[in-house]
Amino acid sequence: MRTIGILTSGGDAPGMNAAIRAVVRSGISSGMRVMGIQRGYNGLINGEIYEMSRSSVSDIIQRGGTILRTARSEEFRTPEGRKKAYNVLKVFGIEGLVVIGGDGSFTGAQKLSQEFDIKTVGIPGTIDNDLAYTDYTIGFDTALNTVLDAINKLRDTSTSHERVSIVEVMGRHCGDIALYAGLAGGAESIIIPEVDYSFDELCKTIIEGKVRGKIHNLIILAEGVGGAEELAKHIEEVTGIETRATILGHIQRGGSPTAFDRILASRLGAKAVEVLLEGKSQRVVGIRNNKIIDVDINEALAMQRENKHDLYDLAKTLSY
Amino acid sequence: MRTIGILTSGGDAPGMNAAIRAVVRSGISSGMRVMGIQRGYNGLINGEIYEMSRSSVSDIIQRGGTILRTARSEEFRTPEGRKKAYNVLKVFGIEGLVVIGGDGSFTGAQKLSQEFDIKTVGIPGTIDNDLAYTDYTIGFDTALNTVLDAINKLRDTSTSHERVSIVEVMGRHCGDIALYAGLAGGAESIIIPEVDYSFDELCKTIIEGKVRGKIHNLIILAEGVGGAEELAKHIEEVTGIETRATILGHIQRGGSPTAFDRILASRLGAKAVEVLLEGKSQRVVGIRNNKIIDVDINEALAMQRENKHDLYDLAKTLSY
Amino acid sequence: MRTIGILTSGGDAPGMNAAIRAVVRSGISSGMRVMGIQRGYNGLINGEIYEMSRSSVSDIIQRGGTILRTARSEEFRTPEGRKKAYNVLKVFGIEGLVVIGGDGSFTGAQKLSQEFDIKTVGIPGTIDNDLAYTDYTIGFDTALNTVLDAINKLRDTSTSHERVSIVEVMGRHCGDIALYAGLAGGAESIIIPEVDYSFDELCKTIIEGKVRGKIHNLIILAEGVGGAEELAKHIEEVTGIETRATILGHIQRGGSPTAFDRILASRLGAKAVEVLLEGKSQRVVGIRNNKIIDVDINEALAMQRENKHDLYDLAKTLSY
Amino acid sequence: MRTIGILTSGGDAPGMNAAIRAVVRSGISSGMRVMGIQRGYNGLINGEIYEMSRSSVSDIIQRGGTILRTARSEEFRTPEGRKKAYNVLKVFGIEGLVVIGGDGSFTGAQKLSQEFDIKTVGIPGTIDNDLAYTDYTIGFDTALNTVLDAINKLRDTSTSHERVSIVEVMGRHCGDIALYAGLAGGAESIIIPEVDYSFDELCKTIIEGKVRGKIHNLIILAEGVGGAEELAKHIEEVTGIETRATILGHIQRGGSPTAFDRILASRLGAKAVEVLLEGKSQRVVGIRNNKIIDVDINEALAMQRENKHDLYDLAKTLSY
Repeated sequence: MRTIGILTSGGDAPGMNAAIRAVVRSGISSGMRVMGIQRGYNGLINGEIYEMSRSSVSDIIQRGGTILRTARSEEFRTPEGRKKAYNVLKVFGIEGLVVIGGDGSFTGAQKLSQEFDIKTVGIPGTIDNDLAYTDYTIGFDTALNTVLDAINKLRDTSTSHERVSIVEVMGRHCGDIALYAGLAGGAESIIIPEVDYSFDELCKTIIEGKVRGKIHNLIILAEGVGGAEELAKHIEEVTGIETRATILGHIQRGGSPTAFDRILASRLGAKAVEVLLEGKSQRVVGIRNNKIIDVDINEALAMQRENKHDLYDLAKTLSY
Repeated sequence: MRTIGILTSGGDAPGMNAAIRAVVRSGISSGMRVMGIQRGYNGLINGEIYEMSRSSVSDIIQRGGTILRTARSEEFRTPEGRKKAYNVLKVFGIEGLVVIGGDGSFTGAQKLSQEFDIKTVGIPGTIDNDLAYTDYTIGFDTALNTVLDAINKLRDTSTSHERVSIVEVMGRHCGDIALYAGLAGGAESIIIPEVDYSFDELCKTIIEGKVRGKIHNLIILAEGVGGAEELAKHIEEVTGIETRATILGHIQRGGSPTAFDRILASRLGAKAVEVLLEGKSQRVVGIRNNKIIDVDINEALAMQRENKHDLYDLAKTLSY
Repeated sequence: MRTIGILTSGGDAPGMNAAIRAVVRSGISSGMRVMGIQRGYNGLINGEIYEMSRSSVSDIIQRGGTILRTARSEEFRTPEGRKKAYNVLKVFGIEGLVVIGGDGSFTGAQKLSQEFDIKTVGIPGTIDNDLAYTDYTIGFDTALNTVLDAINKLRDTSTSHERVSIVEVMGRHCGDIALYAGLAGGAESIIIPEVDYSFDELCKTIIEGKVRGKIHNLIILAEGVGGAEELAKHIEEVTGIETRATILGHIQRGGSPTAFDRILASRLGAKAVEVLLEGKSQRVVGIRNNKIIDVDINEALAMQRENKHDLYDLAKTLSY
Repeated sequence: MRTIGILTSGGDAPGMNAAIRAVVRSGISSGMRVMGIQRGYNGLINGEIYEMSRSSVSDIIQRGGTILRTARSEEFRTPEGRKKAYNVLKVFGIEGLVVIGGDGSFTGAQKLSQEFDIKTVGIPGTIDNDLAYTDYTIGFDTALNTVLDAINKLRDTSTSHERVSIVEVMGRHCGDIALYAGLAGGAESIIIPEVDYSFDELCKTIIEGKVRGKIHNLIILAEGVGGAEELAKHIEEVTGIETRATILGHIQRGGSPTAFDRILASRLGAKAVEVLLEGKSQRVVGIRNNKIIDVDINEALAMQRENKHDLYDLAKTLSY
């Protein structure tokens, strides 16, 4: 393999730049040329491609976002779009493609490899931690710490006003941000798509907490479950305790990546290059049981996320 | 004056604890007893009062929120409520009352002093910086830096996606948070209640910026002017550029106070004690032209906020 | 087991409070009484012990340091000291003892269990990550992020002055902080006790970097290897490039724990209680291959730390 | 005035980039060309000059350090050096020169204007706050907050170990960082060049504090007064309490500038352009009594810093 390409796709995540840096520098160290493709699959179709040097990834390891930009591409979802993309790859001599993104981006890579003679490898870059085959995705740890920082600030004001505070965090289908941030933030209640919750139980927890002398009550809500504002209104009606909702939104995607995310991204980037060097295709890299691994992409996409009831129960026990 | 009381009222602000610490320790140093009144005017009416010692304010200078808690009191707005409050003050021997809060809290103090034999002094504690008689209020600087931190995170993701980003910040009647954060954050547009804005102009700025090669476009919106979500939708319709809104909400009230807020709070707390020691009443303390001052409360509440068009224009020039 | 005790010993680490909270609340949930022992083994000998309730650990999960305080104890190293300690444990009815600390603290627990009828379990709390039986110790992740934050600040000023910057971090016998922070911080060179280094090679890297256009050059030095100031002087002499040393010192031990450390501490605290409930003794808990485990203390203390040359080499490749 | 130059000189300070951005964009808005001069007076002599555009200062307002780099220049201190510098300025058509730096840098500008036909204006960029004519210098507020962050971390570990903690901060001739950070950090003692201190008094404070139940004791030491390590040793000998020193060093110069520093820098940058536009020379800009001012450079350099005993005394009263 002489020339590889790299793109970031879907929502951005802190640590993507560290992964780009690792792919570029590992690739060049292994004697390959590395081509940067801007704006995801869209940019690939449009030929927004330039050769990357070691110095083109200087001073980016600590930056949030992605220097390659990202976009969602409707055109790439069509066979015609992917045909165009393949033609561009051929023109630029790109034999292997590294895709940093989530499951949608991986599906794109998978199809491309199935339909054309192009080797692909995926690196999991998404704050949601919603990929079953890897224990952690790049960006998850940073997002958690951003949420914790917000919780700390809300705790100040909620305590001063003796309010109930609801924090809505990202995670449409996967409650990991809510679950881990709730555990780490000492939240009284955590509401995630994976576990049924009872509104009555929630209010009971709040009222009991107040009676026991708790002066603030924190609820972490994954966005997939429902609206924070509405929930706040209901709680206030039932409990009579002032309740405020905060929707953290896109700040969860930003920020300088944590040590954990930078190291994970660096290791996964180097592994992706290694996988291509070995001539493999349709693989995704990840971390499982603290080991860097690569997995068949079809297998990876078919895996079910394991349930994390033990952490959920632990959070409940410890916040009581 | 032998005994003074202190309470925090209205919305909390970072640095209130530093002000409480300063009042308590300055008061005790001057030979007075200092009584802490919990939960604002409500707690005063209910007699939630305890004597504070030097060590009761240890290790709080760096904490957000207020250890005295805060609340809004309907009852205190009635003559009967204030009569009750005065009776409690008499029972506890409190001759002077320090009120940390905003204009609503100051009006309460003013009425109490007008109706009864109790000396009052106000310390400006509100993140909104909406008090005309003082250049800065306690909490404003911390809130600004919290907003900047959020802007930094949004910049990462907005740049990666080449989006327009709207950040809605606090400030119902006063656009200072939006104005100062917009200037410091390099926002392309700032929308505040004090300055008329044109939606067409706003869109023109965005489109022109894109043409000139700006890869992100940041709009800071004071909550008093209108909804961020709605504005985002309109901009996207007109410009065709993806636009996302973030409402920062209550995280702006929290966090460890900055150096500026801690020093301002320390100085104002000491000044408030001094004012009471001099036998004055119905005063508010503040900072004007870098000097710590005290002002008649009626005068202070009647003052008009000066217009800050120079800063607004500077922000415009520098973000172009 | 009806009553357990808990103490923190040796150097403090961020996340110790989260572990204390987990032990207290898990213990109480399991029907046990939990006794807090202040100031480590010293406080145990002196009987500085009080019963902990659920609310005694409220609002501490986000705090650095340890609410139980910590100390080093000479007396406990003697058989007489341990005899006294055991007598105190008996008087207070403590049947199981949870010790949060590093290898010195674990050795103390081990001896106590060998000599007397007291069950012990250790929780790894040290920023150094120097315990071979566990992949991570509590506090390590927070310390890493503190070092990264310092590196970021030094990068600003080193780049502006085009200097070489040496950062000396903690780790007398174990270079993990230096290694991980160097990898995550994009350091050009990492000097750790586990890997021989050549001063000439170091200078060559600096000079070559300068020639290739690197405008700053960052060296991370583990304290165990030698003095940063001296090294700076030598480098400046040989390369002619201005070189500055920064010794981070004790700020590495402080700060609000990261999400990772809080979750690890919560899980390990709960596990420690479980281990005592099962009637085991002389165990230490940890995390290996992403699973929470418990290990015989003798085995744990005898294990050799695995070499991490892969990470070291990766850092070298990626920083070139 | 058609063309102006800008350089940064001496030690860097957070907010210098915000000032550069303001000069460039204000200058261009006023119809001038703005030439960036790299590496201070050295780069000027060497002709390291390029024209700056609006977009050349995009995305730098939040960055620490200075994109123009900085250096100290021996050659510029000689008449020959300044002659060379003037020749370069003439060649590039630069009629006015903006110098961002401290008193040494200002002296350079002053001499240049005295000896040659070149208009100069200085912007105070130094974390030390050691310029008498301005209440604040750019970078001071950021440095203060960096010191506070370090103090917070040290407080965690000092409290856990019940130690005395000495923090040595920058400020060779001016104790403002120590004074303001000590006041804001609640330090028990502050040692600055401007106020004589008694070692016995210091130890008395520590011992008394311990007796009164203080569990940590924080001393802030300005570097100009003496060595922290040595002081720690003496205190430990006299008081018998474990004492640790931390020398913060160059991290105080780095970091993203605070809101205060960014706004100050933006305003001062715009003012500097205005001063040159008015045809003035040998001026320095600053902030006094919350107003942006410009002052004759000779006058400014001759002014004596006012003593700040009131703040010193306040810190003493409030930390007792």
